Amino acid sequence: MQYPAPIEKLIASYMKLPGIGSKTATRLAFYTIDMNKDDVDAFATSLTEAKSKLHYCSICGNITDDDPCEICQDQGRDQTTILVVEQPKDVMSIDRTNEYHGLYHVLHGVLSPIEGRGPEDLNIESLITRLQKHPEVKEVIVATNATPEGEATAQYLARLIKPAQIKVTRLAHGLAVGSDIEYADEMTLLKAVEGRTEI
Amino acid sequence: MQYPAPIEKLIASYMKLPGIGSKTATRLAFYTIDMNKDDVDAFATSLTEAKSKLHYCSICGNITDDDPCEICQDQGRDQTTILVVEQPKDVMSIDRTNEYHGLYHVLHGVLSPIEGRGPEDLNIESLITRLQKHPEVKEVIVATNATPEGEATAQYLARLIKPAQIKVTRLAHGLAVGSDIEYADEMTLLKAVEGRTEI
Repeated sequence: MQYPAPIEKLIASYMKLPGIGSKTATRLAFYTIDMNKDDVDAFATSLTEAKSKLHYCSICGNITDDDPCEICQDQGRDQTTILVVEQPKDVMSIDRTNEYHGLYHVLHGVLSPIEGRGPEDLNIESLITRLQKHPEVKEVIVATNATPEGEATAQYLARLIKPAQIKVTRLAHGLAVGSDIEYADEMTLLKAVEGRTEI
Repeated sequence: MQYPAPIEKLIASYMKLPGIGSKTATRLAFYTIDMNKDDVDAFATSLTEAKSKLHYCSICGNITDDDPCEICQDQGRDQTTILVVEQPKDVMSIDRTNEYHGLYHVLHGVLSPIEGRGPEDLNIESLITRLQKHPEVKEVIVATNATPEGEATAQYLARLIKPAQIKVTRLAHGLAVGSDIEYADEMTLLKAVEGRTEI
């Protein structure tokens, strides 16, 4: 015996999401059936609209419903700095700090020889074209993740961009604010000591 | 700064699901954008269809896309036994054992004075009507959960049904198969000793 077909289909759809197995999918499906009809309809619409209305910005590669994206269009932002991130989500994380007011560039991944991802699979060529077209850019901040792949990608970009006399910087490594030294891993501690600042 | 509107809406929809907070919702939303268009469309359709095509069986209260449900229509099932469960999901769990071949009745909850849920909020009246209309029913198995509320509901049903000379039984309590005595709680051990069987 199986659940009625509409439930089975909904469970199958939920199971396509990351980290959701058959038990959670079943729980979510039954929860959905008990949800308010308007909420379910809004959910269905938001799914199809997210897929149909969103695309990548032709300049920076960020996800947007406009082209170029809001940030690339904003002339009030500092046009001399480009911050390079791995994923569109990272743009939002950094912008929320209200500390950075320049432009962004989204790579959509990092170099990974193991997964067979080379420079041609990332949004790197458009970054180089962008730098050539905009000589006003004075600094490229590489904000890839603090992973071996993120580091390798940062090094690769630095080698590529530096000959054009553009400053290439990397986000600081160190202890997370509010964290305990006791629980910090060795590499983080090493970077924290290396990058110590005078008080 | 916010994400583009279609993403914000999708995040808001995901957050309406149980156990999904803003971080997970954001992760799921971005994952959805990278999903295959057909899968996203199928997801949206399955959401609206689950809501529009499914309803409760007028006889047993189980979720179905037909009325009466598949089980209530099946004359091959034992018509003399009704197994009472809390939720539609429980019907499937018990039916998967292939051990029970009778009918079901879904209460849609348990008695809970704390949450203000009395007998009139549960699917109990229809059970009584059903028993009156079908004198062939000889046994009602109460399979509410082994929680205080589930126990109280079982006791309540027994008091209600027994005067009609119908046998009322309860699922056995004891050690879960494959479990360690060391980790069993006291109440379970007590019930396991009480319910011991000869070998």
